[in-house]
Amino acid sequence: MRKPLNRINKTDRVSGSNLLGGLQGTGRLTLVGAGPGDEELITIKAVKAIQNADVVLYDALVNDALLEYAEGAEKIFVGKRKGCYKYQQTQINELIVQRALLGKHVVRLKGGDPFVFGRGAEEMDYAAAYGIEVAVVPGISSSLSVPANQNIPVTKRGSAESFWVITGTTKDHKLSKDIALAAKSSATVVILMGMSKLKEIVALFELEGRGETPVAIIQDGTTERETIGIATINSIENKVAELALSNPAIIIIGEVVKHREQLLQLQENYVELKAV
Amino acid sequence: MRKPLNRINKTDRVSGSNLLGGLQGTGRLTLVGAGPGDEELITIKAVKAIQNADVVLYDALVNDALLEYAEGAEKIFVGKRKGCYKYQQTQINELIVQRALLGKHVVRLKGGDPFVFGRGAEEMDYAAAYGIEVAVVPGISSSLSVPANQNIPVTKRGSAESFWVITGTTKDHKLSKDIALAAKSSATVVILMGMSKLKEIVALFELEGRGETPVAIIQDGTTERETIGIATINSIENKVAELALSNPAIIIIGEVVKHREQLLQLQENYVELKAV
Repeated sequence: MRKPLNRINKTDRVSGSNLLGGLQGTGRLTLVGAGPGDEELITIKAVKAIQNADVVLYDALVNDALLEYAEGAEKIFVGKRKGCYKYQQTQINELIVQRALLGKHVVRLKGGDPFVFGRGAEEMDYAAAYGIEVAVVPGISSSLSVPANQNIPVTKRGSAESFWVITGTTKDHKLSKDIALAAKSSATVVILMGMSKLKEIVALFELEGRGETPVAIIQDGTTERETIGIATINSIENKVAELALSNPAIIIIGEVVKHREQLLQLQENYVELKAV
Repeated sequence: MRKPLNRINKTDRVSGSNLLGGLQGTGRLTLVGAGPGDEELITIKAVKAIQNADVVLYDALVNDALLEYAEGAEKIFVGKRKGCYKYQQTQINELIVQRALLGKHVVRLKGGDPFVFGRGAEEMDYAAAYGIEVAVVPGISSSLSVPANQNIPVTKRGSAESFWVITGTTKDHKLSKDIALAAKSSATVVILMGMSKLKEIVALFELEGRGETPVAIIQDGTTERETIGIATINSIENKVAELALSNPAIIIIGEVVKHREQLLQLQENYVELKAV
């Protein structure tokens, strides 16, 4: 018998209406990864968690279609829109705790994976300090899936035996020191939130004589608005200007970027061969 | 209205019985990520792909429960069991092409994510050279989700602003040179398939004066058999011997390993505070 997929519907909704629970801490927090943008790139476990939520706190990069799983739940947008934060991180932490102490199941729905630059670990710590039960449901990280969606594998036997995912924007707003080291490595380098630091990144790779290394920049990955620019370290800044690429975007540096073109070439060669 | 989840059932099964298609190449290949082990850590998109498969080629690390989605499909185990490969990589490539050229939809179901050390890129190339349509559906990578399941975040603001995922077993069976560089970095280092190289890995971190850096090793992550050992670079080999940890296992090196313990401590402190 084919495995029934609607069994996900069978999950009983966890009662979260125990408002008397209060300080007894019957509420809980689940950090849930919403994936990279495509509404089908979310796990079954994540959907179940959303269906069982009393409160959903969600970010700007979360696909709105996923909120439909949370019928009846309180939905609070806590992301950044038009460059402004609606809630500061401390306010988000407080919202989580306040709702959980009322006995509610709070789902913190984050784009990608909650532990990849999502401040998920901080939110867990904050809630745990109030004795709140915490859990995490991993998501498809944009760092891997956005390149994959463009047929760029982060690893490829013989050409890339590691990948290094780095944030362009650290706590102190400086470029991560790891990027200089990454330019010396043979890793595929994936930089998130790095568009405003592109000039510095390019300079670090040029310093290592890697001007010819291929680079891809993918904006709005896995969504209908997806745009890709492909160039080399030397030429990527021109490509960004030409295509007006901007955040949210992912920068991928390494030989694996060529895989996309090779794949197309292989298919074309086949067509030509058949025509002969 | 709550979003119906059984809409995943509505997908029409793609007809793959066009045996006359042959060299016209009506078949196709979809590389699908099965996730880390837990049968619910698979995406909706991946389940749909399996449901539409005529042939499923699957690995040892794939949860058998997922095969139930492929009712009526031909299922071929191509993984490694008891240390032996049932099929060599070239044979897998040939199976894919042979079935796809018969007009079949071939799903290549891989543990974790198909582009993270899965040789997925090679399989795509091989199929593309025969003019076969290829696609990829990302999966939850073990490299991120296995630590997450133990409350170890690969990034944490202020303490780990990057993570580096490295294979312990490269094409030439040597330890990746990147590990020496990783020991100099501030990245969380995640090593897959590295258990047989643990001694060398420890030596490289000791060389950088990092004997006190926390290490976690997680065997059979996200499954019922999950086991974790936590120690430091200096003491991890003893811990492995004590717990008899072996493959399939993931090695995580970095300050983030402490997060797991901190969380428990925070919750305990709260309980004590309430008791006072």
